[in-house]
Amino acid sequence: MPVTVIQHVLNRLKDIGIADVFGVPGDYSFSVCDAVLADSQLRWVGCCNELNAGYAADGYARVKGAAALSTTYGVGELSAINAIAGSYAEHLPVFHLVGTPRMSVQAARAIMHHTLGDGEYGLFRRMSEPVVVAHAVMTPQNVAYETERLIHEALYHRRPVYMAFPADLAEQPVLGAAALLSSPASDPVALDSAAAAIIAALEQARTACLLPGILAARTGLSPLLQRLVDASGLPFATMAMDKSVLEEDQTAFVGMYDGAIMSESVGAFVEGCDRIITVGALMSDFNTGAFTARLDPAKTIAIGHHRTRIDGTVYQNVEMEELIGELTRRLVYRSWRNPDGMALHPAKEAAASGADAPITAEALYVRWGDFLRPGDQLVAETGTISMGLAFAALPKGATFHNQTLWGSIGWATPAAVGIAAAAPGRRTILVTGDGSHQLTAQEIGLFGRLGLKPVVFVLNNSGYLIERLLCRDSDAAYNNIAPWRYTELPQALGCEGWLTARVTTLGELDAALAKAGMACGGVYIEVVTGPYEASPLARKLHDSIATLYPK
Amino acid sequence: MPVTVIQHVLNRLKDIGIADVFGVPGDYSFSVCDAVLADSQLRWVGCCNELNAGYAADGYARVKGAAALSTTYGVGELSAINAIAGSYAEHLPVFHLVGTPRMSVQAARAIMHHTLGDGEYGLFRRMSEPVVVAHAVMTPQNVAYETERLIHEALYHRRPVYMAFPADLAEQPVLGAAALLSSPASDPVALDSAAAAIIAALEQARTACLLPGILAARTGLSPLLQRLVDASGLPFATMAMDKSVLEEDQTAFVGMYDGAIMSESVGAFVEGCDRIITVGALMSDFNTGAFTARLDPAKTIAIGHHRTRIDGTVYQNVEMEELIGELTRRLVYRSWRNPDGMALHPAKEAAASGADAPITAEALYVRWGDFLRPGDQLVAETGTISMGLAFAALPKGATFHNQTLWGSIGWATPAAVGIAAAAPGRRTILVTGDGSHQLTAQEIGLFGRLGLKPVVFVLNNSGYLIERLLCRDSDAAYNNIAPWRYTELPQALGCEGWLTARVTTLGELDAALAKAGMACGGVYIEVVTGPYEASPLARKLHDSIATLYPK
Repeated sequence: MPVTVIQHVLNRLKDIGIADVFGVPGDYSFSVCDAVLADSQLRWVGCCNELNAGYAADGYARVKGAAALSTTYGVGELSAINAIAGSYAEHLPVFHLVGTPRMSVQAARAIMHHTLGDGEYGLFRRMSEPVVVAHAVMTPQNVAYETERLIHEALYHRRPVYMAFPADLAEQPVLGAAALLSSPASDPVALDSAAAAIIAALEQARTACLLPGILAARTGLSPLLQRLVDASGLPFATMAMDKSVLEEDQTAFVGMYDGAIMSESVGAFVEGCDRIITVGALMSDFNTGAFTARLDPAKTIAIGHHRTRIDGTVYQNVEMEELIGELTRRLVYRSWRNPDGMALHPAKEAAASGADAPITAEALYVRWGDFLRPGDQLVAETGTISMGLAFAALPKGATFHNQTLWGSIGWATPAAVGIAAAAPGRRTILVTGDGSHQLTAQEIGLFGRLGLKPVVFVLNNSGYLIERLLCRDSDAAYNNIAPWRYTELPQALGCEGWLTARVTTLGELDAALAKAGMACGGVYIEVVTGPYEASPLARKLHDSIATLYPK
Repeated sequence: MPVTVIQHVLNRLKDIGIADVFGVPGDYSFSVCDAVLADSQLRWVGCCNELNAGYAADGYARVKGAAALSTTYGVGELSAINAIAGSYAEHLPVFHLVGTPRMSVQAARAIMHHTLGDGEYGLFRRMSEPVVVAHAVMTPQNVAYETERLIHEALYHRRPVYMAFPADLAEQPVLGAAALLSSPASDPVALDSAAAAIIAALEQARTACLLPGILAARTGLSPLLQRLVDASGLPFATMAMDKSVLEEDQTAFVGMYDGAIMSESVGAFVEGCDRIITVGALMSDFNTGAFTARLDPAKTIAIGHHRTRIDGTVYQNVEMEELIGELTRRLVYRSWRNPDGMALHPAKEAAASGADAPITAEALYVRWGDFLRPGDQLVAETGTISMGLAFAALPKGATFHNQTLWGSIGWATPAAVGIAAAAPGRRTILVTGDGSHQLTAQEIGLFGRLGLKPVVFVLNNSGYLIERLLCRDSDAAYNNIAPWRYTELPQALGCEGWLTARVTTLGELDAALAKAGMACGGVYIEVVTGPYEASPLARKLHDSIATLYPK
């Protein structure tokens, strides 16, 4: 049988490592859904709603390098658009497959459900344009080359793409063929020049460090970057968005760098280095300690995905992968100054408080840090949670996931499903605040449905704590939320045999953590604290409003 | 104290009947949220997420004529955009108030959270443009006249508008003033000509009927249209989207008109009339029985919101309100042919089955019809539910709410919150399918938080039934959903003292309905049926796929 339009696309997505399609079905997207079901190498992962499906795909792409999302025309795709925007901001190639009405219906300008009633059929694709790097209406005539183009664009930029599948075309046979596009190689002269400039700069430097950035992880270059660290002896510090790009459990790790507001000694070391090399890093508000980072441009070498800047010169068409390889080969090992004992570790002493004591932020974050095991996937929700967990020391092989730039609350719960589905052999730990959890909590049921066994912590501090810290009146009623009985949720949402607990004292917390560490099934623990128990960074941000929102 | 930008806008929104602002707070929108809290005539209604808030605002606007929605930049506004699109499609003026970063931050192109990391600050407003009728960035200089323009546009078109509030401008004093804009009056010649043409056409006609459309309700003209019915003696039939625009409990009501696929006798009557007058109606797929309606253009008079078409002539600038008024004054009463006994009424006989019998669709929809009381607000979710309830006979003063054109599943649950909040003195009945409910179920908690006492029916038929009827393989796995324990949800979501029940037989259903009818608090009933128990129209659509998706 000839391969159909949708089959062709799915085949190519499998080639790049996609084995699951997240989505919600709809009548205009049956062709897409049917093709997924018919393919024994693909799994359909039906989510409760499209935004959740988009977040789950985003999480999956963080682990697997790419993901697929299937929604229906209008209602479905627009519900997911915030998740797509998040994947764009955070450099995740999500393939958004949108089933649309037949071309014949579009040509007739028929007034169909899921339209605005005006016969227009191009509007929603246009709405997606700012948050995807490329888009196309897939037809039998163009599918061969458009698929290659879209895959290439998605991977070159590590951004989402949009593929529309008109219902009457998706199952037609592919016409024509197209060669695979190869990844661009560096301009050899520019590559050599950039490497030479960096090597020369480092030879002149007495002190230097790396700031490994998120794009190194997104492009799968963490192992290569680790070899550079090993070969060069360079120490590194990490910014919030970039946590776990490189293993923290190594001597080269100096600690978390967050401008002037946290880890003063790390900041002094980084900013005092003669050379700072950023690798695929972004100088955003939360990566720079509310813009208090002071990285001298004259000292900073910025290695980007496709270009590198040093001393005012930009070397274009220099691929990060090749440049890291060059540096690894050519740099001579040195015993660079690497201040000892600065990397944060859990302060176990804090655990000594009485069992009846209320749960303070300090005691809580230390315990969460201690709870981690090698290989864990830690999914930290945006807000005071991620600000606290960013300073937990990660064991070997553990990864940290957070939506630091886009910061859409609600992301973490469905993203954790996608992350767990992508690596079911690893333990997935979701830590979310109550306010954030309420946006997307129904997706807890999907863990159960997929047989996944996460450890979920819901921090119940009676509202949006990060907002209490940033708004004018911390008691403002809009930061209150509905008083849910969180621990009843897993069962209500169909999860069988989960361990649930609600803890309000340190003793209860410790007991629950001990049980959770030994649990065979899913775990869901509600941790109740006072409404203003915030992680240290969150408290610092409260004091840093003037630099966080520059005038 | 001088009035600030945001205060000015809120004052004007209050003038047009808005008393509640639905939303989710965010750090860029604190100025908006603070101003709402500070205004004793406004209530902040915090929802679990922005899509839900948008749906709630949509529901509120269906009752109050307009609504306000507050979201934060990027993550918030994009999460709500599908609800805004729905309000656009369904002609609901929702004022979308979006808090954005300061103008200083935007000018500096700072890399802030909730941005794409590229320094661009105009993208998300552009994404909203296709689904709003007007938009503006509100500043001290423009707020006076922009507010008038946006209100005018929203009400003239009955569509949403978008208002951006930069955080540093929202609390600055208003500069300048602007006169209120008056609603446009009809071109007197066109109005007189249109009225005369219609009157002449009716004088020639032996038979005629009205098809009252949704825009008559959206513009608040239902009472006026009722006077036309009373004055003229014209009978009327109703299409799905237009249910309850006029009272069904009157002799002028002929029945539901749905092309050739339902109510054959109503169809024969309507299509056989010498003249059919549509008033603000839309000939969409689900209003026309999957395009099987056959309304002869030569016989059809289309009264629109601002123009009217008869016999190939379009009378521009004829306001619906004035034209209905003219016709009411000038038409002479006639005893028009009005076939008797065609309006659907609950077939009470179906209730005679045994108490242990499973719940069939026929028995269920009859019972839901019987459950209705005068004045009820019935919120029917898209899918087989709305297709069944569209044929229930509504008691006096009862209203029917459904998103017939946009058809975004999940809409009904939060929309019911908005509808209930807008008219807390009326009973609100939400009927939703299990698949649809899962998209937005967390908003059940908001009923409890607001002290609202709805009657909620969740039809558990193990998946997306309308899709089973429309897709190729009705057993396709993508139409399955997670097996929730629905009746545990209200308590888990913080609702106190609700009556809950899970019913699987007719006897249990009858008992639960009896209790629900007498309940003093909220009610939540899970109705379990076989997976293929569908309302008659839904089954007909299954047979009408060829006309529903024209080739």
